[in-house]
Amino acid sequence: MPTRMGRRRARPRRGERWITLTTDFGTGDGYVGVMKGVIYGINPQARIVDLSHDIPPQDIARAAFLLARHFTFFPPDTIHLVVVDPGVGGERRPLLWMAGHYFFVGPDNGVVSTALRRAGQSVRAYHLNRPRYWLPRISSTFHGRDIFAPVAAHLSRGILPRSLGQKTKQWVALEPPALKVGPGRLQGRIAHIDRFGNLLTNIPAEHLSAWGSQLRVRLHQVEILGLARTFADGAPGNLIAYLDSDWHLAIGRVLGSAQTTLGARVGDPVEVLGP
Amino acid sequence: MPTRMGRRRARPRRGERWITLTTDFGTGDGYVGVMKGVIYGINPQARIVDLSHDIPPQDIARAAFLLARHFTFFPPDTIHLVVVDPGVGGERRPLLWMAGHYFFVGPDNGVVSTALRRAGQSVRAYHLNRPRYWLPRISSTFHGRDIFAPVAAHLSRGILPRSLGQKTKQWVALEPPALKVGPGRLQGRIAHIDRFGNLLTNIPAEHLSAWGSQLRVRLHQVEILGLARTFADGAPGNLIAYLDSDWHLAIGRVLGSAQTTLGARVGDPVEVLGP
Amino acid sequence: MPTRMGRRRARPRRGERWITLTTDFGTGDGYVGVMKGVIYGINPQARIVDLSHDIPPQDIARAAFLLARHFTFFPPDTIHLVVVDPGVGGERRPLLWMAGHYFFVGPDNGVVSTALRRAGQSVRAYHLNRPRYWLPRISSTFHGRDIFAPVAAHLSRGILPRSLGQKTKQWVALEPPALKVGPGRLQGRIAHIDRFGNLLTNIPAEHLSAWGSQLRVRLHQVEILGLARTFADGAPGNLIAYLDSDWHLAIGRVLGSAQTTLGARVGDPVEVLGP
Repeated sequence: MPTRMGRRRARPRRGERWITLTTDFGTGDGYVGVMKGVIYGINPQARIVDLSHDIPPQDIARAAFLLARHFTFFPPDTIHLVVVDPGVGGERRPLLWMAGHYFFVGPDNGVVSTALRRAGQSVRAYHLNRPRYWLPRISSTFHGRDIFAPVAAHLSRGILPRSLGQKTKQWVALEPPALKVGPGRLQGRIAHIDRFGNLLTNIPAEHLSAWGSQLRVRLHQVEILGLARTFADGAPGNLIAYLDSDWHLAIGRVLGSAQTTLGARVGDPVEVLGP
Repeated sequence: MPTRMGRRRARPRRGERWITLTTDFGTGDGYVGVMKGVIYGINPQARIVDLSHDIPPQDIARAAFLLARHFTFFPPDTIHLVVVDPGVGGERRPLLWMAGHYFFVGPDNGVVSTALRRAGQSVRAYHLNRPRYWLPRISSTFHGRDIFAPVAAHLSRGILPRSLGQKTKQWVALEPPALKVGPGRLQGRIAHIDRFGNLLTNIPAEHLSAWGSQLRVRLHQVEILGLARTFADGAPGNLIAYLDSDWHLAIGRVLGSAQTTLGARVGDPVEVLGP
Repeated sequence: MPTRMGRRRARPRRGERWITLTTDFGTGDGYVGVMKGVIYGINPQARIVDLSHDIPPQDIARAAFLLARHFTFFPPDTIHLVVVDPGVGGERRPLLWMAGHYFFVGPDNGVVSTALRRAGQSVRAYHLNRPRYWLPRISSTFHGRDIFAPVAAHLSRGILPRSLGQKTKQWVALEPPALKVGPGRLQGRIAHIDRFGNLLTNIPAEHLSAWGSQLRVRLHQVEILGLARTFADGAPGNLIAYLDSDWHLAIGRVLGSAQTTLGARVGDPVEVLGP
């Protein structure tokens, strides 16, 4: 799996490595800020980027979707730290994964599994069981601060994965949402709804390419004819089907919200028919 | 146009240049994070500051207002990247502007025009038409990631504007909201309502100076007598008129929200009468 | 007061010092971004971390609670800048405090007093009355930008506190919320409700240790038996009492919101009874 960056033009300084944060913590309670404080205390040269903290509480599927969609746009060696962790303090293990050019740190509940599948390469995983790389005092409800952030910080300053934990061959994986392929007909699902009310599906562009722009998209008793290239191709208020920025089928409304118009929800079926 | 910084006390390191981000992407979908990933991949030494990502979808006027109000408080050479882009993928051009001490990158839909007018100096503009400075694969709905972020990143590491695009003399400008000036009487508009429910108008302080603090402000069937210096001058619950931090007339409620009290909206008329 | 970091592993570069920001500005109006612009203009090597900008307008108590809970997790010498400032432009003084390993900058309205009490060491305070370290033009409603941010920036690049202001021995302190201790019985309050709907109380773990896990917690006509170690110990939907990540008593609902279930609010009484 290549990164999406193309040729890189400059190198980070020694010890500088990016850490992205994806959590369901929101930004109001200081939980995210304090994770950053912990990271900088261990590696002052760490570079931190927020991916999303607005994951609804415990919504592992949504975090998994966003991470898988975005992770390849970061510089190689970026550490993607994900803390959506309803099982915190219980049996689920804290893990570190290496896949392609990236590292992932988070709880073993499937939240990084979609990204790993997409990386499509051999994955190496480590069970984070070396408390010397954690904070001195561990709470039972905030491993983001006490375990995951310190481990990511140590990793970012060059500590080797095998020092941070023990190799493991097993981890939890989410089932990919089903895609049914029939003759002249495809059925997928709404996988994510974004801030604009665009409905992003799990139907990849390569499944549609045979039909060109002649396809029909059905959802919620509505049929949309043809594939628009972009929003500017539709009249204000029109529903359009288009390829989103991850090259999957999406449904949007020009200068409006397809979600509101259709009352759509994540998981709703979307059908595509050939000409 | 001077910056607001006064004397500068220290210099950034080579290759370090600030990029501010203003979008209507929200922070929940990872769209902003991924733009940062792209920027850092091209210029690891870039410094990024979020100005606002809570612009309501497609609200060009609101983004234009905020940018114009704030851009001079950043270090000279800062690149202000604005992506409120309802016409993405269509005819509207991606542009780069230089004005005063600052750079602006965004779609040619007027979103930076208010800042440019305020810069009040000769503006140089470039049509961003050199794909070698973009990501290798361009989506038709996310030019923020695929075109604007890469261009800003290359600019921040020292690539010259004329390498990034072709000079142009034309761009879209928003009409400034009308200000009617009569004898002993001024009429403006609510230009922005902030989180505190303060009503910020388009009436600059210099138009009021002749009247001192004796003026009267009328809006929504309410008349406010006199200009308060600050919130501490009013009793809790009182409506006050004051000069905001951009030295324009504003209406607020002490320890409360003028917006809620009055049911005010952006665009509502505000009248000022002399003594 | 020790920091929570344990042994530090690396040192920041010269001039690099962390500044945390806690405000009631929200992130939509650009007020926070512009404070960062001002800081970087004065000290390009400053490192900024957002702690929270979602403090409800003028809610000094909430900001004080969050700051006190989190400040020790940042690297030593971090400057905690807090701008929740209903008295801006009035009589209240801008202050700088030094306590333990940290600096605090903000208005003298009690917002940092809870953190100072927790630091539990001698505090030195300075009245910020040297305009040469402020922006050249001071508004009367945005001292966060015009006074506090510049002072924090100068402090971060090594200017001594005594240059920034005059020593003072007095400042405003919030009363800590009352904790009533009787035989076999404790009464405290809900001090904060977080994004997950967890009810964080002001009852510290050390007051509960004699009772082990046999205690009973009463609030809102509900009695919870025993102290769970973590959320994974309860069945989905169950209310549990547990020690939060600041080692105080908290009430949560497994995979749900205790706030919604109970209709709880900050300030509500919480009673703990021994076995």
